[in-house]
Amino acid sequence: MVKIGIVGVGTVGSAVIENLEKNKELIKARAGKEIKVVKGVVRDTNKPNITIPLTTDYKEVTENPEIDIVVELMGGVDKAYEVVSDALKHKKAVVTANKALLAYHRFELQKLAATPFEYEASVAGGIPVIKALRDGLSANHIMEIKGIINGTCNYILSEMKKGRDYSEVLKEAQEKGYAEADPTFDVGGYDAAHKLLILASIAYNIDAKPEDILIEGIENINLTDIEFAKEFGYEIKLLGIAKKRENKIELRVHPTLIKNSEMISKVEGVMNAVSVIGDVVGETMYYGPGAGGDATASAVISDIIEIARGNKNPMLGYKIPLENEKLSLIDASEIISKYYLRIAVKDELGVLEKISHILAKNNISIESFLQKPRDGYVKLLFSTHKAVEKDIKNAIKEIQNLNFVLKDVNYIRIEE
Amino acid sequence: MVKIGIVGVGTVGSAVIENLEKNKELIKARAGKEIKVVKGVVRDTNKPNITIPLTTDYKEVTENPEIDIVVELMGGVDKAYEVVSDALKHKKAVVTANKALLAYHRFELQKLAATPFEYEASVAGGIPVIKALRDGLSANHIMEIKGIINGTCNYILSEMKKGRDYSEVLKEAQEKGYAEADPTFDVGGYDAAHKLLILASIAYNIDAKPEDILIEGIENINLTDIEFAKEFGYEIKLLGIAKKRENKIELRVHPTLIKNSEMISKVEGVMNAVSVIGDVVGETMYYGPGAGGDATASAVISDIIEIARGNKNPMLGYKIPLENEKLSLIDASEIISKYYLRIAVKDELGVLEKISHILAKNNISIESFLQKPRDGYVKLLFSTHKAVEKDIKNAIKEIQNLNFVLKDVNYIRIEE
Repeated sequence: MVKIGIVGVGTVGSAVIENLEKNKELIKARAGKEIKVVKGVVRDTNKPNITIPLTTDYKEVTENPEIDIVVELMGGVDKAYEVVSDALKHKKAVVTANKALLAYHRFELQKLAATPFEYEASVAGGIPVIKALRDGLSANHIMEIKGIINGTCNYILSEMKKGRDYSEVLKEAQEKGYAEADPTFDVGGYDAAHKLLILASIAYNIDAKPEDILIEGIENINLTDIEFAKEFGYEIKLLGIAKKRENKIELRVHPTLIKNSEMISKVEGVMNAVSVIGDVVGETMYYGPGAGGDATASAVISDIIEIARGNKNPMLGYKIPLENEKLSLIDASEIISKYYLRIAVKDELGVLEKISHILAKNNISIESFLQKPRDGYVKLLFSTHKAVEKDIKNAIKEIQNLNFVLKDVNYIRIEE
Repeated sequence: MVKIGIVGVGTVGSAVIENLEKNKELIKARAGKEIKVVKGVVRDTNKPNITIPLTTDYKEVTENPEIDIVVELMGGVDKAYEVVSDALKHKKAVVTANKALLAYHRFELQKLAATPFEYEASVAGGIPVIKALRDGLSANHIMEIKGIINGTCNYILSEMKKGRDYSEVLKEAQEKGYAEADPTFDVGGYDAAHKLLILASIAYNIDAKPEDILIEGIENINLTDIEFAKEFGYEIKLLGIAKKRENKIELRVHPTLIKNSEMISKVEGVMNAVSVIGDVVGETMYYGPGAGGDATASAVISDIIEIARGNKNPMLGYKIPLENEKLSLIDASEIISKYYLRIAVKDELGVLEKISHILAKNNISIESFLQKPRDGYVKLLFSTHKAVEKDIKNAIKEIQNLNFVLKDVNYIRIEE
């Protein structure tokens, strides 16, 4: 029998307990052993719906000689780090769904781990994309990862396509419980960044922190952008992107214009998907529910079953590096992308000439151009060929200073 | 070091050898061991492009004490069965991409296997869907599988949406090498059936043979059907479907009308995708290239790496059953589905009344109805509510015998 202690018995923890019970016989057959939750750690033990013994002291789980696997579902970074490292020091196997913890401390925890340390549920909820990277695609150098890994953003962008305003949809998402009262963590791209860093750490063995990478949210997307996207055959998605360029890695999270023929552009609403390009297989994509108690529990339990089976997978907490090369992070200013620019200007002579001149001077060549008249002003929409991030940022600064430019110049990167 | 013998060195075999060499260091790091192909078995050893030692006698591989893993890539059923069972008897681990072999003999071979026996490449090429069922979704009872698992059919149906005729597209597919000179195996649904049976054997531990299940191909789809699909918001896809109904399983391969809001309906061209509904996670989908030397090699090598890692996965060749319940196959006549019917009739009085009467008599209720005038005759297009297969077949027989019915009554099942 495999004995489990759960630290944090909220929505996901309860779903883990319920589904382990509901599918008990099936899971026993698949794991080869009975799996039993013997203790839960909570802040307040007065939880009448929870049937397992509860405590407020995590050491009753992490240092309990009876317990084989500690399942960390408390969230947050510092306290969770204390709990997980204590568990690993006491030679417990650990399963966690905690993306923030892993984005900041995966490598330190991995060094501590002499026991299995798994976290399928930390990225894209119920979609087994970590196992795909680790096992199914193990023959491949990972060339590129593109992930829709924040359901809140994808829901908001999907609704805006119907012509609805950003703030109206955000308010609705908050009412439906898809978005927090303070939505910054989701709409600002930080949640997606945590997940991207976990995927990149598996694909590239790269230990980057959220502070090291480019993170932009969807707050500035408006209906003009949506209109442009439709007109030119794009969808706008918040993507977490990892790209290999020789021995360096680009990591970035931002709203992205992506061709509507691409499979990942078709993902609507709160669903998640991760597209992975391998040098041998080409593109594969993994799609499903990125959040929710049951979906997350499915991933947590799959990790528990794997540990019960006794399998060792070197990419998750073992000593073998997964990339033989030494890969380093590309500075955000050196990112290469195509861009879409939205510029509101006074309707006067010479405007286009001056803007074109600034773009050319900064090595940016225009791919397509659209001019939209508005009440009392004009919107200029450009898409560019591939350009370097710092050149675009310079050009935007210069354009912003032109006296006929009326509002903030806006941009969205284009993936093709 | 892990030593490999490959039986059958064609497109996939060569790609396995090349990619093992190309990604040698990466694979060594991930497997924890060097992997080396030491011998290939071919019909004719005169292959100047192959750098490994060749032989025509498979026993030089299957009974070679130096070899750890036998990779069977020869295709076909009887001879491959002889080779794989000889390898398993000699305690070799076996990796195969041979779907026909597995559709007919998976359970016999599994009984023989005291060593790892893996076959990720046998279904959907480079998409790691077998590992997803076995590992990532291990907490779930699988409620439903829907797979686009034949690229030829999906290519033909995708092209027909552009208004092109079936026979014209098939001819083109043959010229491009997407379809064989005798296309029956693909367009008749048999290839998809082999793959469906493998997925079902993993999800349900059910030992069904191609002869036991309903298999229909895409040969009768015409542009009227494509038009109807468009009008009512469907796509037409050849799907392999497995559905759990209480303790019984429906297994079937046929062209299917599927709502164009479903993710799997958006898969175009030669690409493959498998949607899996689990009772805990909900729907997840796996998408990617279903064929080709490199894509298939990616899956074959991932199996080799898994074996090198020393992992044991009970669903692939080990003794633990994966479903605790005893599941049996639902007879094809008892399948429950919605249907679309296409009936060509003379333009005369009372036609609709007589057909409606036959449908009602057979417990079939009409959901939508469309009448299309054609030169000299009328096409009637019905969609029905859920009905039982044998009732539909009876109704079709009766309608076919009406004297105003001009051609064969045609039908497509609808998944919703």
